[in-house]
Amino acid sequence: MAAGADRSGKVWKSSARLADGRQIIYFDESPGLGRAAVPDGRNLPARPEGGSVLRFDPLLREWIAVAENRQDRTFLPAAGQCPFCPSRPGSPTEIPAASYDVVVFENRFPAFSGAPGSSQDAGPPGLGAERPASGRCEIVCFTPEHDSSFARLSPRRAATVIAAWADRTEVLGGTAGIEHVYCFENRGEEVGATLQHPHGQIYALPFVPPRTRQLLASARAWRKGSGGNLFDDVLAAELADGQRIVARNEQWTAFVPRAARWPFEVLIFPALRVPDIAALRQPAQAALSELYPDVLRRLDALFGTPMPYMAVWQQAPASDAAARDELAAHLQIMATRRAPGKLKFMASTESGAGVWSNDVLPETAARMLREAC
Amino acid sequence: MAAGADRSGKVWKSSARLADGRQIIYFDESPGLGRAAVPDGRNLPARPEGGSVLRFDPLLREWIAVAENRQDRTFLPAAGQCPFCPSRPGSPTEIPAASYDVVVFENRFPAFSGAPGSSQDAGPPGLGAERPASGRCEIVCFTPEHDSSFARLSPRRAATVIAAWADRTEVLGGTAGIEHVYCFENRGEEVGATLQHPHGQIYALPFVPPRTRQLLASARAWRKGSGGNLFDDVLAAELADGQRIVARNEQWTAFVPRAARWPFEVLIFPALRVPDIAALRQPAQAALSELYPDVLRRLDALFGTPMPYMAVWQQAPASDAAARDELAAHLQIMATRRAPGKLKFMASTESGAGVWSNDVLPETAARMLREAC
Repeated sequence: MAAGADRSGKVWKSSARLADGRQIIYFDESPGLGRAAVPDGRNLPARPEGGSVLRFDPLLREWIAVAENRQDRTFLPAAGQCPFCPSRPGSPTEIPAASYDVVVFENRFPAFSGAPGSSQDAGPPGLGAERPASGRCEIVCFTPEHDSSFARLSPRRAATVIAAWADRTEVLGGTAGIEHVYCFENRGEEVGATLQHPHGQIYALPFVPPRTRQLLASARAWRKGSGGNLFDDVLAAELADGQRIVARNEQWTAFVPRAARWPFEVLIFPALRVPDIAALRQPAQAALSELYPDVLRRLDALFGTPMPYMAVWQQAPASDAAARDELAAHLQIMATRRAPGKLKFMASTESGAGVWSNDVLPETAARMLREAC
Repeated sequence: MAAGADRSGKVWKSSARLADGRQIIYFDESPGLGRAAVPDGRNLPARPEGGSVLRFDPLLREWIAVAENRQDRTFLPAAGQCPFCPSRPGSPTEIPAASYDVVVFENRFPAFSGAPGSSQDAGPPGLGAERPASGRCEIVCFTPEHDSSFARLSPRRAATVIAAWADRTEVLGGTAGIEHVYCFENRGEEVGATLQHPHGQIYALPFVPPRTRQLLASARAWRKGSGGNLFDDVLAAELADGQRIVARNEQWTAFVPRAARWPFEVLIFPALRVPDIAALRQPAQAALSELYPDVLRRLDALFGTPMPYMAVWQQAPASDAAARDELAAHLQIMATRRAPGKLKFMASTESGAGVWSNDVLPETAARMLREAC
């Protein structure tokens, strides 16, 4: 049963501190590797006090993080200077160990940082409202191999990433003042990734994001109108129609949404609704570790070149019990290449008006993805 | 008073039809030019029937235009083949005349087209809801000079563009089934502009865009809380603070909003609140024709290279009287270069969560723009 055991996704977690006090957490696929015992020998400057602030935008009633300390963050370094590769003698990186399976550490240039205060706003914010951009930003390195990608992870390694997401969602979501945990990957320079090494990020936020609030409002309106759960009903409708299914197994369905905004947008829904990744049962985690890389490989195969994408976990707010009953976790992949050499941009209509037009018929996109590999 | 007359922005409007039946409208700065009498000698295929559809996204409760006919639209043509330059013998373009001042014509590859039906939705849309993406998409060419830009327009020419915007806002906004008129410019390949010739676009939409609805909801909540108008109060606060003012004259104030989302975002507010461009008085139009190109020149001067930007008119819905009392027209410029060689992207946090962080302090951005020219 070695193969079965390997696929169980069991991970060994160990934690240490980097030279400037940031936490690093190793998620290993074998016990006793002693990664966390390796010290960070770098001489890093102390982390800036205070950090960024949240300012209230009265025109859209949203909080914006102003984070001037991030302007000098690492930007497309040469391959030999990648801060996310394991350390080599004489070339220390963000990861002190000589190798790793999956590793999570606090972002050196965080948009959100510091211990949250009260998460409750005292009344409606005024024009000059400002508060600390408290929270935490973490980096998740998917593999020590600089030139790999999530699409090329083994199911075992993908399962370890999923286990890390689940762990962070649970731990960060249980932290006082954190209202939402957001796990995502920006893949490709075309979507603004400034480091090529395969990695994602986790934001632990001191507020529920606008899109999450919209999803929740939609689910509540749907419940009121139909009596059912919005996410259950969307999945049932996609399964009944079938034209937009990209891939599926017993636990998961990947489909292009009927009203996709992006040329190749894929939603991955679990068969059994859960509020967040931490609530996924083991068989669901294992099944996702096969299906998700498969979908990403289809995106890469589509035009024979790495597909730029944003992959994000939509999940329920961390501690709002009513919301957790209604909002169902799902993975959303927004792929931005609409044809060879052509990208979809969020330009004036999307950015300024919130009006979207999609040049690729979702049924066509799904068929292309089904036939891609 | 010749100089004064020239600045009055008087325009002569004439309309004609292109070979496939699309309307073209010349806005001339002198009378009797006979542009509209020049026939379009091209042999264009008939415009496709039906066109795109709107599909309802139940997850965010928004309508998405699915427009497969746009995938083959003109994409970064060589300079000699620009469809927005005036026609030359043997090289017919979208504009039959041998020159023009400002010209507006229906987009050959529209995301929205066709006569609107009833603009009222019949009850809450279901999962499969679909309706025609009716409306109209227009191109606005700012100048016949291919290599120019809005920043380099004379005040007289800028005034003619403003007159064209006002005309189209009034005419399209008065059309049955059109609920909103949206005027914008995508400038630069970096924000997805597929044609370099200086031009903007106008969307006449069969619904009020999500962002407009958000602005309106904010204004109503503000009225309820403070008794005042949100836009008046934001402008007054910016003037009182002063740190984020970029440029101003008696009629207009350009400022970086206190909670800017983009590294160089500039809002241009009129001193006297109006619901849309069509409601601007003549002195306000004339004053904007000086201030707006000045702000754009500052953006170009900032890093010594053309600044990619999205410039959009936020205006009130066309025919909702209560909304027109509350929502104040303003020009929003979203410039995307955050440093030489570095762009701000809407990546996973913005696109997937609606969470924004800005690396440039708005006060710093305003100072840099004030000092740029």
